Amino acid sequence: MLPHQQNGHKSKVLVFGAGNFGSCLADHLGDSSHTVYMWSRSENLVNHFNQHHRNPEALQDHLFAESITAVGPEFPSAELVQRMDVLLFAIPTEGVRETLTALKPTLEGGKVPLLIFVNKGIETKTHALTLEIIADTCGPEIAKVATFISGPSFAKEIVKRQPTSVSVVSLSAEHAQQASQLFHQPWFRCYTGDDPIGVELAGALKNVYAIAAGIAAGLGFENNTRAMLITRGLAEMTRIGTAYGASPLTFLSLAGVGDLFLTCSSKTSRNYTVGYRLGQGEKLEHIIKTLGSVAEGVTTAKALKAVVDELGVTAQIASGIYDVLYEGRDVEERANELLSLPPNRELDLSEGGKPAQRLMEKLGLTPEV
Amino acid sequence: MLPHQQNGHKSKVLVFGAGNFGSCLADHLGDSSHTVYMWSRSENLVNHFNQHHRNPEALQDHLFAESITAVGPEFPSAELVQRMDVLLFAIPTEGVRETLTALKPTLEGGKVPLLIFVNKGIETKTHALTLEIIADTCGPEIAKVATFISGPSFAKEIVKRQPTSVSVVSLSAEHAQQASQLFHQPWFRCYTGDDPIGVELAGALKNVYAIAAGIAAGLGFENNTRAMLITRGLAEMTRIGTAYGASPLTFLSLAGVGDLFLTCSSKTSRNYTVGYRLGQGEKLEHIIKTLGSVAEGVTTAKALKAVVDELGVTAQIASGIYDVLYEGRDVEERANELLSLPPNRELDLSEGGKPAQRLMEKLGLTPEV
Repeated sequence: MLPHQQNGHKSKVLVFGAGNFGSCLADHLGDSSHTVYMWSRSENLVNHFNQHHRNPEALQDHLFAESITAVGPEFPSAELVQRMDVLLFAIPTEGVRETLTALKPTLEGGKVPLLIFVNKGIETKTHALTLEIIADTCGPEIAKVATFISGPSFAKEIVKRQPTSVSVVSLSAEHAQQASQLFHQPWFRCYTGDDPIGVELAGALKNVYAIAAGIAAGLGFENNTRAMLITRGLAEMTRIGTAYGASPLTFLSLAGVGDLFLTCSSKTSRNYTVGYRLGQGEKLEHIIKTLGSVAEGVTTAKALKAVVDELGVTAQIASGIYDVLYEGRDVEERANELLSLPPNRELDLSEGGKPAQRLMEKLGLTPEV
Repeated sequence: MLPHQQNGHKSKVLVFGAGNFGSCLADHLGDSSHTVYMWSRSENLVNHFNQHHRNPEALQDHLFAESITAVGPEFPSAELVQRMDVLLFAIPTEGVRETLTALKPTLEGGKVPLLIFVNKGIETKTHALTLEIIADTCGPEIAKVATFISGPSFAKEIVKRQPTSVSVVSLSAEHAQQASQLFHQPWFRCYTGDDPIGVELAGALKNVYAIAAGIAAGLGFENNTRAMLITRGLAEMTRIGTAYGASPLTFLSLAGVGDLFLTCSSKTSRNYTVGYRLGQGEKLEHIIKTLGSVAEGVTTAKALKAVVDELGVTAQIASGIYDVLYEGRDVEERANELLSLPPNRELDLSEGGKPAQRLMEKLGLTPEV
């Protein structure tokens, strides 16, 4: 396959975060002949990477493109930031507010680079989406042109150039286009859209349904049940999303059903594993202690409960997961309660949209009705 | 789990077809205390089944409910048909026209039982959906109240009472409700809807995308690529469906994304297997010769090509599959062409709806606009 024609434009990109996903995206962009800097707080990682083109903490088997330079451990300087065309944020949602607060002064005065976010999740304390965190820290003008990339994309397959597709969205069609142009290759196909709220919600919520899929497998259920959970989980996500103010179509996207499907069918995902072990009868405390890393779905389930209660929308699966994680309910008994619910119509979408409306007002945008 | 309360109503059900799916549904209904007759053209099957409660041709390991009586090999008599509350059709789409033509005279004069169809596919010669075949053979009044059940439901898991969910749809909400009431159990959850055209299209088209998923695996592609194909296949199905006149939401249903997901991730499905072997470099002729059974996706791909051309809608994946199956195109080269398409917006739904409009006119229904 011939590489995608990029109109000869080579960009300078600074990637915040050197975990699995930040590293594989840095590698992808470096391989497409962009000039890439990757920031890490770990001095050891920075030195090791620049010497060996290997990341000691992620994708250890992979030899990275030589066009990538690791920077850090100090926060990137205003001088470096202002030379960049693109800033790519591949850090956990919980760190975005702090990072953007530190970044803000370095953006003053110069042209604002294209901002791309690939984190997924809802901020625990505030229940804010990243779009809102950007508005809070950098102001609405920057939030309005921020872009978001999400989709079914295991890092270890991206570095092998396995064909991968993602949703690339922004409230600004022009900026979504720019991010797509930067990333698009035959082996990394970009599809643009204009619903960052829906894409962010889908990215966060899918982890809760991955716990549910894991539980079903742990209880000994097979393919019919998994397909049921993915489909009914998708319907529930869509219902929550439209009540929040997202477009229902977003849940049909790569960031929606695509990522949900990948996460719910991956036995190696942390969220699926938490669910599987719960289904097998282990206690949550013990699972969390021995898992060695955080499963975002566990914290998202709590934030989601608050969001769902505020919206007044029915979300049976999410409620079941919350009850098992935070109310000490027995997994099998709670699953049987779900299965014993009366028959119903499929696909009733909620009316609503207040939270998205509030967020659009914060950005100075009046939502279309 | 307690069984679903059926208001004490026990139905008499005649199942046409004694294959995997007909048998497992007969078993499910028999187990819910309905009186079930299962018609087969095979005298040996009928005798063996009634003597041993085992089906020599399907689900051989399963001991069936004693409340099921096999009938045949003669076509069911008017006397038997008129005693029934429900007729359930679990025969291939290619046999529906013939069966309904034979059935029609037995329905005359008496009350019309509830008709339930579980076949999937487009009639090869006419490109008709089953809804249209029913109208052609039994008249529009019967087609308007016919019901359709579809969803992610492997027969071998249904007979194990693994939790399964399906879409139950009809142009008549009341009849969909009746079919749901008949089938619903905690382990067989029914969700009602009103878009039989969308459900039928989804059930037929998914087999074409299962071939695509198989090809990707055969070419050595992994999870990202499969999730991409399922998602982009779903978008394509939805685009074709809305151009045809179906509701886009139907593609989010158990009959839509649920069944697509199950079929595309099942290594044992015939359609997936055809694709996998094509991806590995085998010739179609040889695969068909050695497969031992028909893969519906192969014939559907041809009918779909005609439908898509008539609608004038873009369906890149379906076209690719057609080219590989019927134009002798090289699999890897054709896949690379697809991957090399320029970047695009995600989720553009087509306007249209002419075929559904024509079908609604045939049924004497004016479509809502």
